[in-house]
Amino acid sequence: MTDELADWSTAADRLAEVATDRSGSPDAGAPDLVVRARSVAEVQTVARFATAHGIALVTRGGGSGLAGGAVAGTGSIVLDLSGLDRIVELRPADHVAIVEPGVITADLDAAAAAHGLFYAPDPGSVAISTIGGNIATNAGGLRGAKYGVTRDAVLALDVVLADGRLVHLGAGTLKDVAGYDLMSLVVGSEGTPGIVVGATLRLRPRPAVTATIAAYFASLELAAEAAVAVRSTGVQPSVLEIVDGATLGAIDRLAGSHLHERGEAFLLAQVDGTDVTAEVAVVEKALVGATEVRSSTDPAVSAELLAARRLALPAIEATGRALIEDIAVPPSRLAEAVRRVHAVAEATGTTIYVFAHAGDGNLHPIIVVDAEPGAALPAAAVDAADRLFALALELGGSVTGEHGVGLLKQRWVARQVGPDVDGLHHAIKRVLDPAGILNPGKAV
Amino acid sequence: MTDELADWSTAADRLAEVATDRSGSPDAGAPDLVVRARSVAEVQTVARFATAHGIALVTRGGGSGLAGGAVAGTGSIVLDLSGLDRIVELRPADHVAIVEPGVITADLDAAAAAHGLFYAPDPGSVAISTIGGNIATNAGGLRGAKYGVTRDAVLALDVVLADGRLVHLGAGTLKDVAGYDLMSLVVGSEGTPGIVVGATLRLRPRPAVTATIAAYFASLELAAEAAVAVRSTGVQPSVLEIVDGATLGAIDRLAGSHLHERGEAFLLAQVDGTDVTAEVAVVEKALVGATEVRSSTDPAVSAELLAARRLALPAIEATGRALIEDIAVPPSRLAEAVRRVHAVAEATGTTIYVFAHAGDGNLHPIIVVDAEPGAALPAAAVDAADRLFALALELGGSVTGEHGVGLLKQRWVARQVGPDVDGLHHAIKRVLDPAGILNPGKAV
Ligand SMILES: Cc1cc2nc3c(=O)[nH]c(=O)nc-3n(C[C@H](O)[C@H](O)[C@H](O)COP(=O)(O)OP(=O)(O)OC[C@H]3O[C@@H](n4cnc5c(N)ncnc54)[C@H](O)[C@@H]3O)c2cc1C
Ligand SMILES: Cc1cc2nc3c(=O)[nH]c(=O)nc-3n(C[C@H](O)[C@H](O)[C@H](O)COP(=O)(O)OP(=O)(O)OC[C@H]3O[C@@H](n4cnc5c(N)ncnc54)[C@H](O)[C@@H]3O)c2cc1C
Repeated sequence: MTDELADWSTAADRLAEVATDRSGSPDAGAPDLVVRARSVAEVQTVARFATAHGIALVTRGGGSGLAGGAVAGTGSIVLDLSGLDRIVELRPADHVAIVEPGVITADLDAAAAAHGLFYAPDPGSVAISTIGGNIATNAGGLRGAKYGVTRDAVLALDVVLADGRLVHLGAGTLKDVAGYDLMSLVVGSEGTPGIVVGATLRLRPRPAVTATIAAYFASLELAAEAAVAVRSTGVQPSVLEIVDGATLGAIDRLAGSHLHERGEAFLLAQVDGTDVTAEVAVVEKALVGATEVRSSTDPAVSAELLAARRLALPAIEATGRALIEDIAVPPSRLAEAVRRVHAVAEATGTTIYVFAHAGDGNLHPIIVVDAEPGAALPAAAVDAADRLFALALELGGSVTGEHGVGLLKQRWVARQVGPDVDGLHHAIKRVLDPAGILNPGKAV
Repeated sequence: MTDELADWSTAADRLAEVATDRSGSPDAGAPDLVVRARSVAEVQTVARFATAHGIALVTRGGGSGLAGGAVAGTGSIVLDLSGLDRIVELRPADHVAIVEPGVITADLDAAAAAHGLFYAPDPGSVAISTIGGNIATNAGGLRGAKYGVTRDAVLALDVVLADGRLVHLGAGTLKDVAGYDLMSLVVGSEGTPGIVVGATLRLRPRPAVTATIAAYFASLELAAEAAVAVRSTGVQPSVLEIVDGATLGAIDRLAGSHLHERGEAFLLAQVDGTDVTAEVAVVEKALVGATEVRSSTDPAVSAELLAARRLALPAIEATGRALIEDIAVPPSRLAEAVRRVHAVAEATGTTIYVFAHAGDGNLHPIIVVDAEPGAALPAAAVDAADRLFALALELGGSVTGEHGVGLLKQRWVARQVGPDVDGLHHAIKRVLDPAGILNPGKAV
């Protein structure tokens, strides 16, 4: 096959580079071959070859995934799509972009900005993740409180199936009910039913004004309660995040800031629109119990506050090996969830940092352990993670809101959905990938 | 089986009542049995029976469908779910409702209103359609410009499979990536992969203020151009509709109003939020070319204007037998689409009324023919419909934006999605319904 490909390698250093993602998944060995695709035709060639020979094929975007979705073990081929990075077309009048999968998320947003538009999904990893990876994980982001997740921005997909066929899913229009919604099936499926090689994405007009509201609280529970109160005002914030005191301390250490002095929890909200004066007043009024509230429409101030929030994960990762959890709960149970995450930390004797996309009930409890990457995890940390998953289900939620199942959450997802649905997942996987070569052992 | 059921009938008049929907589909005969389900267990009993005996099972909600999705031919069983009409639980703090499938759409919205919330999807048929039918067709509505379609309001589904198993799809949270998105697969699938027996739905806080903006234009093309201009302002109207002069005349005749005197096209927009003064000004400014613009935040005025728009379809139906088309195009091509629909009418010598959900590029060209219901359609009307479908595809759109495929659009959907995707639809259908008993011959 390699004679049909322009850029491939079996060099150990190159293979090591693409063997894992940012999940800290245990070492699965290194793949046998990495192909950096130059065209859709090459993707088709690789898929056909993998199917014909029954070889595991792991598609890779930016490698920033947190669930082990792009981990490639011994015997597999890695298909690196980061080189397919053209923004093929921007259609400003339609608020649409047509892109290759390797486009870096932030690059698309920047290209849209030149036309007064923006690309809404903004995971913390915008600077390093790709659109293909965002689609395959249904990535969320800070602006998700108002604009939803990646799926809400996907209007059509070009997908290479396991047997090499190229199909187009979705009509590219805002509304379409022509047949089954296979497009949504591919979104969030971690590349297991097909390889995304093109996407038609929804852009939106950049709001005329964005106001940022920052508040400090004496505890994360109080901040969580305030977030629930904001949700009930009828104002739809574009961003609604909460960060606990421990995380503020970690950010301070990384960035030299002084956030933790101001409270044991931080709430960050944004409202955007034509004139947001009234909305800001409503949100401020809902922040009962805050020790300090500050609002600004100055883009520089907003950027600074958002940057602090975006540092949360890197700052925690700088303190030790981080197990990044990603549970979702009904929004009204946010404060309860926070309380019980703290109880899990206490019961298991682990250190758990917490920040959350409070606008949609998506919490990231981060268990930091004292263990080398790749080494076995302390039993207490595994116990804590299991308790967090059980908590999510007990609260009527999900064990993964946005990071995906990957290698790490298989067992818990099977428990969440139950054996019948798990069986359907596998049956549908077999329809799309009879040889089982696409990212085997992931997602379902 | 019937000894296990509380309410069933083989009486000819009852069977005739449930044999068809509002599509005006050609007569397919009458079903053999109608079961009005009293419980989920009864639904499971009927599904098991139908699978065991290979009998076609047609689920029915309000029967308001416009694509023939609920048409039940000779030899079939109709499963009428309109009796499962309890709102099981409202969780105001979570903005969530848990409902049975037979709840009338408007009833859910009214129940939500009691808590300061609303249910966003509002098809023209809110007073007669059911939540189950809305989900099975992924119904759109007037407020879709801002709040999306039914799928955007669905957080989890209880589904009875063809073999009688009950599965729960989706986590009920705002974010969830645990496994494949089978929930979205069921939405819009016209009951062909399973029967929706319960839904967890997203409600939203009722906006503090809603402003309605009504404008008249000298032509529908001008109104369509104005709608595109509104979309580019960055203001997100909740409603953005256009109606042509012929439809205004029909509404006048039905309602005794005097809309048509004021222009050859009508544009209706709503903006909602905390303080919409600035938004209204922006929208008004974008309505270049309007001969008359009027705005109001008076709920009575809004209700009156919306009621006029909701009369569009009944008013046209009062003029003759109506073939209701439902094409979707990229928003920027709305004016072009309108122009070319008029050209189709001219070329085929047919009468075509047009109104559109302009906010999302979804047009309803309505071909009115001089033929009795059930009688064969004039060749010119069939030709016109085919030209409209071809137009949708040529403009890069969809042959059905919200009404669905049903019996009427099979051939065109196969053409739209192509043979490979069509094959996948059928393969997935076989996974979920191996005996092929669920609404055979619909959707895919
Ligand atoms: C600092 C940091 C912050 C983060 N913040 C967020 C956040 O806020 N929200 C969030 O949701 N995630 C977040 N993440 C996780 C991660 O960035 C996302 O999951 C992202 O979408 C992965 O994109 P990627 O291109 O790096 O994909 P990869 O890691 O390369 O791959 C992820 C999965 O997608 C599959 N895949 C990749 N490309 C394709 C394709 N073209 N076709 C089919 N399958 C494909 C892979 O096989 C794998 O299963 C964060 C990660 C980091 C390191
Ligand atoms: C005056 C008028 C205005 C309309 N305006 C709109 C509009 O603005 N937007 C729009 O999208 N549509 C509109 N429609 C079309 C129609 O109302 C919608 O398609 C609606 O969603 C159908 O709901 P129903 O309960 O009447 O379903 P039915 O007509 O009974 O069934 C529709 C389809 O759904 C299936 N089904 C029904 N219930 C279930 C269930 N519980 N589980 C599985 N499958 C099920 C049926 O088998 C059938 O295929 C309008 C119709 C009329 C008559």
